[in-house]
Parts: sequence; structure tokens; C-alpha cells
Amino acid sequence: MGDVAQRLAGIVGEQHLLTGDRISDDYAGDESLVGPPAKPAYVVRPATADEVAAVLTTAAEHGVPVTARGAGTGLSAAARPRPDGLLVSFERMNAILEIDTTNHVAVVQPGVTLSELDEKTAEKGLGYTVYPGELSASVGGNVGTNAGGMRAVKYGVTRHNVLGLQAVLPTGEIIRTGGKIVKTSSGYDLTQLIIGSEGTLALATEVTVRLHPRLGHGATVLAPFSDFDQVMAAVPEIVSSGLAPHILEYIDAFTMAAITYTAQLSLGVPDDVREASQAYLVVGLENRDADRLDGDVETLGELLSGLGASDVYVLDGTAARKLIEAREKAFWTAKAAGADDVIDVVVPRAAMPEFLTRAREIAAKSESGVAGCGHAGDGNVHLGIFQKDPDKRANLLHDIFAVGMELGGAISGEHGIGQVKKEHFLELEDPNKIALMRRLKQAFDPAGILNPGVLFD
Amino acid sequence: MGDVAQRLAGIVGEQHLLTGDRISDDYAGDESLVGPPAKPAYVVRPATADEVAAVLTTAAEHGVPVTARGAGTGLSAAARPRPDGLLVSFERMNAILEIDTTNHVAVVQPGVTLSELDEKTAEKGLGYTVYPGELSASVGGNVGTNAGGMRAVKYGVTRHNVLGLQAVLPTGEIIRTGGKIVKTSSGYDLTQLIIGSEGTLALATEVTVRLHPRLGHGATVLAPFSDFDQVMAAVPEIVSSGLAPHILEYIDAFTMAAITYTAQLSLGVPDDVREASQAYLVVGLENRDADRLDGDVETLGELLSGLGASDVYVLDGTAARKLIEAREKAFWTAKAAGADDVIDVVVPRAAMPEFLTRAREIAAKSESGVAGCGHAGDGNVHLGIFQKDPDKRANLLHDIFAVGMELGGAISGEHGIGQVKKEHFLELEDPNKIALMRRLKQAFDPAGILNPGVLFD
Ligand SMILES: Cc1cc2nc3c(=O)[nH]c(=O)nc-3n(C[C@H](O)[C@H](O)[C@H](O)COP(=O)(O)OP(=O)(O)OC[C@H]3O[C@@H](n4cnc5c(N)ncnc54)[C@H](O)[C@@H]3O)c2cc1C
Ligand SMILES: Cc1cc2nc3c(=O)[nH]c(=O)nc-3n(C[C@H](O)[C@H](O)[C@H](O)COP(=O)(O)OP(=O)(O)OC[C@H]3O[C@@H](n4cnc5c(N)ncnc54)[C@H](O)[C@@H]3O)c2cc1C
Repeated sequence: MGDVAQRLAGIVGEQHLLTGDRISDDYAGDESLVGPPAKPAYVVRPATADEVAAVLTTAAEHGVPVTARGAGTGLSAAARPRPDGLLVSFERMNAILEIDTTNHVAVVQPGVTLSELDEKTAEKGLGYTVYPGELSASVGGNVGTNAGGMRAVKYGVTRHNVLGLQAVLPTGEIIRTGGKIVKTSSGYDLTQLIIGSEGTLALATEVTVRLHPRLGHGATVLAPFSDFDQVMAAVPEIVSSGLAPHILEYIDAFTMAAITYTAQLSLGVPDDVREASQAYLVVGLENRDADRLDGDVETLGELLSGLGASDVYVLDGTAARKLIEAREKAFWTAKAAGADDVIDVVVPRAAMPEFLTRAREIAAKSESGVAGCGHAGDGNVHLGIFQKDPDKRANLLHDIFAVGMELGGAISGEHGIGQVKKEHFLELEDPNKIALMRRLKQAFDPAGILNPGVLFD
Repeated sequence: MGDVAQRLAGIVGEQHLLTGDRISDDYAGDESLVGPPAKPAYVVRPATADEVAAVLTTAAEHGVPVTARGAGTGLSAAARPRPDGLLVSFERMNAILEIDTTNHVAVVQPGVTLSELDEKTAEKGLGYTVYPGELSASVGGNVGTNAGGMRAVKYGVTRHNVLGLQAVLPTGEIIRTGGKIVKTSSGYDLTQLIIGSEGTLALATEVTVRLHPRLGHGATVLAPFSDFDQVMAAVPEIVSSGLAPHILEYIDAFTMAAITYTAQLSLGVPDDVREASQAYLVVGLENRDADRLDGDVETLGELLSGLGASDVYVLDGTAARKLIEAREKAFWTAKAAGADDVIDVVVPRAAMPEFLTRAREIAAKSESGVAGCGHAGDGNVHLGIFQKDPDKRANLLHDIFAVGMELGGAISGEHGIGQVKKEHFLELEDPNKIALMRRLKQAFDPAGILNPGVLFD
């Protein structure tokens, strides 16, 4: 065993240091469709913040690059380790430490999965409202990517639902930020800075998340539109209505066909309506009161008809659940259909029609395909990219990202930059901001050990 | 005219550079009750981001400390300039550039006042939901302090309502962060880092704020409690109820007497109830629908009675408005009553009773007085401090802040650290975090020109 391995084994215990063949393929990457996975030189599975601190100190001393890993469901290769590097897997730090029903927070270890947290908080009538499509994701991974998901239109993204952290700095110190408090103006907000930093600034070893009361009644409404622009124009109207939907998704006709086919799901949309539909809106409403919910569903139906929906379907519980699940699995469907990448540009809500039109024009010109769905309420467009040639694909992505930014948006709404969008990020983003971000990185991580190759070169 | 003055006059125009006697007392500080005001050597009133950039470049070259000023309503002396320094007043950059009713955002210059923005957005049925007690405050000042206010319990604080900035770095570059988008995962969140940094990292020259639909119907409910702990215990129950109040304030008996007396306000609370009351809750509800509001008010009334309220009063429109105004003016009442300082510790909601009990014990021991009110829904306790002796007061504050932090809270929930709480902040906060914050400060401001003496020494 080498010197580094010996030190690491001394910290986490021999059975929790993996090297060579003991490292399974799983640890070689996340769910990004781009680029080859890469097995690291070492995997450690620490059990405590102190162990994480000792691991980082060792890595810094030996100049070993460190990548944090939650569940590896990320889509930007931000959890893909370096071949010469060390992967810190949080799989053993997966306890729910506390569900505090008075302050409405949970304190969890970073490796806890969203499905487990969902189950345990449900027992108390509360919930952590970050629902990316993949509930095997971990809370620590949410912190890494600033994950969003379908409920963000009402409840915000990870940034709005994480109140505090225990975090290990790459220099080995363990700090606590924020807490069971919804606000503070007492120095720089380190919590917010670490959230979304894709494992490049600090590793979260404990997370205090906000919980919301679960509302007892919910309904899912499906509205096909024969005109794509009308779908997009409907979105801000629904947001303005005050109905406060917790789901507001669009699904283009191609994607709807694919996901319903994959899920063997029949939604009761007659053939003629389906054939004439360019896209669909899926709107979720919830209320503490059944009558109020019924009233809201009716209001929403009228609103949607007035906005050009060909029809309005209130889905029954099973169909609704299946449609939402199928939508969550859209990524797998795109992957199975041969998508070469999946991107998630965010633009101002009102700019979605222009963004989509221009993205499709760009794709058509390079004989590529784009199709998708998205968190319409957030202006977040998820597009599967179909183009095998890497150079053509790089040009295509560059042009689509450039349009998104020109329209006042950003390259990624929730998946992050990671390794796979870095080239475009560094090229398209203001160099003054990049330089400032590099100085911030330096302030946290002078030895540059945390996730080199992610965000920056 | 000295060299610096000449350069500044060349940038902003002679009439917008003030020196010597042309600097009015107004510019010498904010509303903090502590320490003497200090007139700066220079005041500039720039009109554009380019002028601000040129001013900062000049200041950096000459090593002149720079303090940004919005409306000067801050309570922590964070806008109090240095005697040898330069005050950048944003009073001329006060335009509302755009109210975008599709994306639900406004783009404003930092000097715009909250009252003007409130008026102009109301015309469109929308609103910027940050309402600190003083509506002459500016949006730029909100960014500086991460201001909160009464509606934060429902709508969050400045951090949750600012989506993007144009900002000038102390190194002279002009950057844009965020935008008309509700989320992004594309590099470090500079918007969030600048918010709450009290003018020490960058100066905001344009702010994109989120707007919410105004709900047409509102009600204000007043509930006296004869037992202080019951008031506090009621708060999390109201938050859990799903009634989603937009105001949830507590006011102690002493403060209620003072503010109603000052406002010459009669609330219809019978003498015997009033005399037996230790504290009051004020709960604001709002809805798009009048009937639903009525239903919610009824539910709230029952809930409050069950939680120990001596009685429940639904205030009529005028009384409600006057009470909220009187509460907003509580600071002036405390000042008029001779308060020597006002603090705003934030603690986990459930820890408010213990915090208040211990704060009062500490005060009693040092023969000091504390009385107040607070944003109970946020765990944010505003206390007027009555103790003339500066050393005793410093000890008192130290001990109260220490209790707040021990209970998992922070020194300030919304007013900031500024100059006046810095000593305690630097003493009580984790030195590793202070060191990290200093490195972040250095990454933004290598020459250390922005608000030296605020947050750090
Ligand atoms: C089918 C499918 C649907 C999806 N839908 C969505 C969606 O709707 N919205 C959305 O936002 N995402 C979505 N995702 C992406 C993914 O689920 C999220 O990004 C999730 O937050 C990743 O969590 P993870 O635990 O898998 O993180 P990983 O992939 O393991 O890591 C993600 C990043 O976080 C870092 N990290 C992990 N743990 C820590 C820690 N403790 N401290 C600091 N950094 C850490 C990693 O280094 C990496 O940079 C989807 C993915 C799939 C496969
Ligand atoms: C009666 C009263 C009641 C109050 N109630 C509340 C309350 O309920 N909640 C609350 O949060 N606050 C409250 N405050 C405090 C105050 O109103 C807020 O802090 C407000 O945000 C300050 O805005 P301002 O424009 O006056 O800022 P200033 O006092 O001028 O400045 C505040 C800070 O912001 C910085 N700053 C100003 N402009 C910029 C800019 N363009 N870019 C970067 N930094 C800038 C300054 O340097 C300083 O650090 C109250 C004050 C009073 C007098």
C-alpha cells in the first residue's frame, strides 16, 4: 500500500478505503451522457465530519485531487473523479439526525437519499420540497448542484430550502453556517456560496433543510395545445393568476409520445386532439382544503381554455401519478432514444418561445435533433440533444447556450456546469466574473484539491 | 481642490461632488443609535454605473475608503462613512427602469425608495415584498443589509427577492449576475454573496427584483396573551397551520403601550384584558378571495383561542393599518423613550421563549432594561436596550448575543453587523469562518477600499 493509501486507511478504516479492483464501476461517474467514466485511484467512505477533515488534510498534503460523491445521479459529470484522484463517497453518512416539527427543519447527513427523507418527513406531515426527477439523489448532491425539480415553481430550489450546513473546508477546518433560522444578516452568506459550487469549495457533512407542511389535497391537470407559442404564453398567465401551482411543466409532442409509450400510459386524450397537439402543459395544484382545491381546478380549467388549450383533462390519481413519474423519467427515455446529451438552459419565462424557436433552428441547420420538456414555470428548458458528431455537437451547444445567455438566461438552471459544460461556460461567461470566481475558489481552496476540472480548467 | 477631488469632479460633475461645508449632516451616518456620526471628506452622487466604476478606480488608486449610501435608514452604522473617506450616495440613481409584468420582475436603480417602488408596482397589481419598517429605505440598501421586515414570514427576505444585480467591483469592473430568472446553477452565486455584505464587496448599480401578485383581500388579527411563553409557543403552531400568514409579529406589553400611546391608537382591547396581557400577537392574512379569507380568519381565531389567547380581535381596516404603522415605527418610539441601542438577534423560532427569558435575566442583573417586539414567525427578536453606561452595555450585548448564538441563532437577523456590532461579531463568531470571510473580502477587494471598519477591523 502506498503512503497515501495507508494514511487514508488509518482514517476511515481499511474496509472503507477502496483501491484498484475493489473500486466498482459505479464510482467512475454520474449519469452524464458525455465522455468516458473514470475510475479514481482511491475511494473513501467516511463516517464522520472529522474523518472527512482528516481525509482532506491528507489529500492537500499529497496534492491528491478530491471529488465528492452523493448518489452519482448528477448530469454534468461533476461527480466524475480524476483517474489519479480520491473519491469521497457519502454513502455511509446517510442518517436523518433530527426532524424538528417545531422549527420545521430536518438535520441530515449529506448521504441521505431524497426518497428516505421524503418518507420520514411524510410521517410528520412535513416535506423537503426539492424534487429532482431522481429521488435516489442525495441531499449533499442537491447542495452540490443547487438542484431544482418540479416543485421549484412554488417552493424554490435547493438554495431556498437549505438553511445551514456543517462543512469541511479543503484546508481541513470544520465550520457551521446558518442553522435552524430562516434568515441572518451576520457576515457573508457561506451557506449560499457553497450551495451550487459542485464540490469545488467545501464538502457538506451535515445539512439543515427547511420543511413545509404537506397539503392534504392535490390535483393534476393536463392541457394539450395545438400551438407551441400558446403553451409558452400561457405560463406567465398561470403564474400571475395567484393559483400558485406546485407543478408547471411543458412537454413537447415528441417527448410526450416517447414517455407515455415507455410508461405504457394512456391519458385519455382522443387521437385527433393528440395528433394536432404540439405541446402539453401539466399543472399541479394543492390545497389544505378539498373544496378550495376543486374551486381552483375549475378556475384553472377556464383559464387554460381561454389561453388556447385544445382541451383540459383533470387526471385521476393513478394517471396523474404515472404521468408525473413518466415526466421524471424523461431523462431515461431520452437516453434510451439515443440522445447524445441533455441540457437545461434557463431563460426568463417570457423568453421561452424565442429560445425554443431559435434552438430548433440552430439544430435544424446542423442536422441535429432537439426535443424536450421543462420546468416551464421557472423558464427552465430541458432538451435532449441528438447529434453523434462531437464537433458538430459542441458547436450546436455553444450556439444554443449563447442564445440562452443573450436572452438573459444562464447555461444551466439546475444541473450545473460540471466537467461537460465547462468549455462553454468559460468561453461564454464574462471573463471578469470568471476571474472573480477563480479568486473565490482560491480563497477556499488554496491547494486546488477540490474537484479540479469542474467549473474551471 | 486636491488631486482626488479634481478627479472625482471630473467623473461626476462638479455639482455632484461635495466637500467640506457642502456636505450636510445627513451624510454623516444612518439611524444607528450608537456612536457619533462622521462626515466624510467627499460625497459623490454618481448617475451611472460607469461613473461608479471610475469613482472606485480613483479611490483604489488613492487608497481612499469608500462607503455606499442608499437612504441612510440602516441601524448598524454600515453607511456611516470614514472621516477621511468618500461616500457614494445613490440618490440620483433612483429610476425604475422596467416593470416586467410577464416575468414578474422589476429592474431598478439602487437608489429607488421602497415607497416609490411599492406605488408603481401596485399600479400593475404586483409588489416587491420586502417591507422593512422604513419605506424611505432604498433597494440598494436592502441589498446591502439583506433587509427583512414584516412580510418575510411569507415572502422571505431580500435574498429571496433579488434575482440579479449589476454591480461594480472595487477593482473597477462592472459585472452582471443572475437576471430575470428564478434559478441558475452556472458557477458561484455572486448575487447571493453580495447581498448582505453591507457594502464591503461590491456596489450594486442595478437590481432585478422579484414581484409577487398582490392578493386583493387582507385581514389583521390581534390576540393578547396573559402568558409570555404561550405567545411564543403559539408561533410555530400558526406557521404549521398552513394558513400562511404574511405577518406574524409579537409585541410585548411595554412596547404595545408605548406604540399605541405614541400613535394615539385605540384598539378596543378592554382595560382588564390589557392589564393582564404580557404580550400580543399580530397576524396578517391575505387571499385572492374574500370568502376564503373569511374562512381563514375564523380558523385562525379558533386556533389562537385554543393556544391561550385571552381574546381575538379582527381589526377594522383603519385600526389595522394604524397598528401596523405603529409597529413599523417601534424603532422611533424606542428611540424617543431613550433606548441606547436596538438589536435584532435571530434564533430558531422554538427558542424564542428561552432567548427572551435569558435576555431579560441578563438585563436585570446589570440593571438594564430590554423591551421589544419582533418578527416572531422568523424567530427575529427586536429589543430596545436601555443602559447608558457604554461598558455595561457592551457586556450586556455580548452576553445577549452569546445566548442567541448558543441557541443556534445569529447576532443579527436583518439589520446587519455594520460598525456597531463588529466587536461582538469578531469575538463570538468562529475564527475559521472570520478568516474565510476575510479571504473572500480580499478576493473581491484586494486594496481594501470598500467600507473598511464594517464587519472587520
Ligand atoms: C432521471 C433524472 C432526473 C433528474 N431530474 C432533475 C431535476 O428535475 N432537477 C435537478 O435539479 N436535477 C435533476 N437530476 C440531476 C440530479 O438528480 C441532481 O443533480 C441531484 O442533486 C444530484 O444528487 P446526487 O446525490 O446524485 O449527486 P452527485 O451526482 O453524486 O454529485 C453532484 C455534485 O454534488 C457534489 N456533492 C455531492 N455530495 C456533496 C457533499 N456532501 N458536499 C459537497 N458537494 C457534494 C458532487 O461533487 C457533484 O459536484 C436528474 C437526474 C436524473 C438521473
Ligand atoms: C424605523 C425603522 C424601521 C426599520 N425596520 C426594519 C425592518 O423591519 N427590517 C429590516 O431589515 N430593516 C429595518 N430597518 C433598517 C433599514 O431600513 C434597512 O436596513 C434598509 O435596508 C436600509 O436601506 P437604506 O437605503 O437606508 O440603506 P443605508 O442605510 O443607506 O445602507 C445600508 C447598507 O447598505 C449599503 N449600501 C447602500 N446602497 C448600496 C448599494 N447600491 N450597493 C451596495 N451596498 C449598498 C451601505 O453601504 C450599508 O452597508 C428599519 C429602519 C428604521 C429607521
